Amino acid sequence: MKKSIKPGTLAFPTPVWCVGSYDGDGKPNVMTIAWGGICCSAPVSLTVSLRKATYTYQSILDRGAYTVSIPSVKYVAEADYFGLASGKNTDKFVVTGLTPVRSDLVDAPYVEEFPVIFECKLIQTVELGLHTQFIGEIVGIKADENILDEKGMPLMDKAQSFVFAPSNKDYRAIGDVVGQGFKSGKKFIS
Amino acid sequence: MKKSIKPGTLAFPTPVWCVGSYDGDGKPNVMTIAWGGICCSAPVSLTVSLRKATYTYQSILDRGAYTVSIPSVKYVAEADYFGLASGKNTDKFVVTGLTPVRSDLVDAPYVEEFPVIFECKLIQTVELGLHTQFIGEIVGIKADENILDEKGMPLMDKAQSFVFAPSNKDYRAIGDVVGQGFKSGKKFIS
Repeated sequence: MKKSIKPGTLAFPTPVWCVGSYDGDGKPNVMTIAWGGICCSAPVSLTVSLRKATYTYQSILDRGAYTVSIPSVKYVAEADYFGLASGKNTDKFVVTGLTPVRSDLVDAPYVEEFPVIFECKLIQTVELGLHTQFIGEIVGIKADENILDEKGMPLMDKAQSFVFAPSNKDYRAIGDVVGQGFKSGKKFIS
Repeated sequence: MKKSIKPGTLAFPTPVWCVGSYDGDGKPNVMTIAWGGICCSAPVSLTVSLRKATYTYQSILDRGAYTVSIPSVKYVAEADYFGLASGKNTDKFVVTGLTPVRSDLVDAPYVEEFPVIFECKLIQTVELGLHTQFIGEIVGIKADENILDEKGMPLMDKAQSFVFAPSNKDYRAIGDVVGQGFKSGKKFIS
């Protein structure tokens, strides 16, 4: 039996993505967002949604660039902190001791300690209401060598990434393999 | 040591969302997408990206509506199949034996057997290239009563949802709790 729930931002699971940018003084900043995703394959692009009130908002517009650093489970406290504090009055890299690295492809920093990095060039800004959606072309991906498979692809198990559960307000590890993409469903095709 | 990887749609994890719509003849259809997410909190909205070549694409434009049904692990084969077959020449509900239910709020069907449903009214269409992004206001949420907590919120553990790992091309269950949102990071705030 289904019950109706008041509309809210409860769709799950959501990613935990740390968005890196430089402010007007060139100070590296990073904020965590849960509202984003891949949005197009040509050009290869992803989207992150931010409120105008965030410090990162203006930085992305000014520099036309951002990165997405995907944290591993061991950095869950740092990732949570990146969503709690504001770069306006804090240097979140200094506070956490993590290392900002300037991307060689876009005008934005990424988090060296996180295993998977997407370097994005802002290509479109969509005003939605309280949030603004930044659409960024992925011009580069960087990953720790020790999480790559023999074809050079990043393995999710080794990246140890995690998700956010909006209604529970907690972070969850990625669990066991439960099916194969483009394969498990073939049993319905005769 | 970080290694550069050719840009691709590798950001993870991605959701596994089944998008419901009616075609021109009123036949219910459902397709699985991995590229979407919550995008705004006021109006509360989510986005799904589709190629123009999909059968669902025109249905969403014609009806101005779609649903997102979030499957539980026991339906991983059905969800995978919904991404393999096309509604153009198949009735995916008949093939899988799952039940289409007409939303009472938007002109689109959802999957009765899946525990969490979002009912969306199309409010914006963003052309990105190969993919088109549909932005839908969430006008209703429905969830199985047995997955709700005492406050009436859907619990991710009980929903038994799962994610897709793009580089591994497999589906993963949601794992253990590894941190608390808006709390784990407080240790960095003095």
